[in-house]
Amino acid sequence: MTSSTPLSSTERTTLGRKKNRGVTDRQALYAVLDDGLICHLGVVRDGTPLVLPTGYGRDGDTLYVHGSTGASSLRTAAGIEVCVTVTLLDGIVYSRSVNDHSMNYRSAIIFGVAKAVVEPNAKMHALKVLTDHLAPGSWEHARDVNAKEFAAVSVLALDLTEASVKVRAEGPADAEEDILANKAWAGVLPVRTVFGEPESSADLPAGFPVPGHVTERAAATAP
Amino acid sequence: MTSSTPLSSTERTTLGRKKNRGVTDRQALYAVLDDGLICHLGVVRDGTPLVLPTGYGRDGDTLYVHGSTGASSLRTAAGIEVCVTVTLLDGIVYSRSVNDHSMNYRSAIIFGVAKAVVEPNAKMHALKVLTDHLAPGSWEHARDVNAKEFAAVSVLALDLTEASVKVRAEGPADAEEDILANKAWAGVLPVRTVFGEPESSADLPAGFPVPGHVTERAAATAP
Repeated sequence: MTSSTPLSSTERTTLGRKKNRGVTDRQALYAVLDDGLICHLGVVRDGTPLVLPTGYGRDGDTLYVHGSTGASSLRTAAGIEVCVTVTLLDGIVYSRSVNDHSMNYRSAIIFGVAKAVVEPNAKMHALKVLTDHLAPGSWEHARDVNAKEFAAVSVLALDLTEASVKVRAEGPADAEEDILANKAWAGVLPVRTVFGEPESSADLPAGFPVPGHVTERAAATAP
Repeated sequence: MTSSTPLSSTERTTLGRKKNRGVTDRQALYAVLDDGLICHLGVVRDGTPLVLPTGYGRDGDTLYVHGSTGASSLRTAAGIEVCVTVTLLDGIVYSRSVNDHSMNYRSAIIFGVAKAVVEPNAKMHALKVLTDHLAPGSWEHARDVNAKEFAAVSVLALDLTEASVKVRAEGPADAEEDILANKAWAGVLPVRTVFGEPESSADLPAGFPVPGHVTERAAATAP
């Protein structure tokens, strides 16, 4: 599978309606996953759905998810069918009619069987991918994972084989008669996720400098 | 059920670990739901999990979800078990050790059977609740829902009976030895969701004013 391989078109990743919002190239999938910070992991437990928010990281066509994120069920997600969804909200679409209000967004939905990453080199690599996504630069700056921590953590891997991407990135789509009536405003209120000023921990010595990988990240998305 | 009724403590809403992050009062649930804009709705389809992003709105102890959001399966969610999760990311927690990195967040998970809202008055009320959450002021400003639109739209309702809330809102939690080593920065990089400047639709006449309910919303969360 290369980056130009089209996304899958299995029945459950083929959009039932609004097909124009489906995006079928792999770069679009990567872009959504690389821009998000939290995914929603769905599993079936006792026959009912469970949706858990968790961090993740991508390396090529593999998505890694932390297996110890506050929910015991994540550990049991290894070897079973999961659905991972990442959604980025980009705007509120105000239309001339209440009914045509909408959102601009990018979302990715991935289906597959999550596998526990157990081989030590692969597991350490997965932890680096997760860290690089959550906090780029921390893998080099912070203390390494020690043997006890390494044994206690669990990581799941999911192939990006069966996936779909949906994007809405446009203005209102009002009916002609609503446009002609000219009675209401229509437009988009952009929604952005931004970083604030880094807040040093209270237990750091006074004057401990905020490292470049943190200040640069804050500056990159400052409004 | 009043606003001071504790949240449920069924087995699946009782946290398996990190119990200190569980929040058990109903106001905390309302706060998460009222601050979010998108929920992730989980259903079981053909025995496998499906997680869909969609808009929602809350009125008292009822959560409303649009039933026609691009996925035919949402319509079949009526009458079946769902899990609705809303997650707000508040910060990236940088710790002195890679292993202790974390996120500050607020999340709500609700379990229940989604019911289709069919009685006309209840359905119109549900549409108003959804609109007021997505775009406050639009119910009054934009054209009303007409009979054809009203018939075509579907709304699901979910009681906020079985729910759990988790909150992490603190600095790094490093081990004493990592603090004493004093080798790495630790702190929080805040994450905020903000609105940008309203963008008027290209098909509006020049000079059409942006209404107050939009400009005020943009200003309220401007950084």
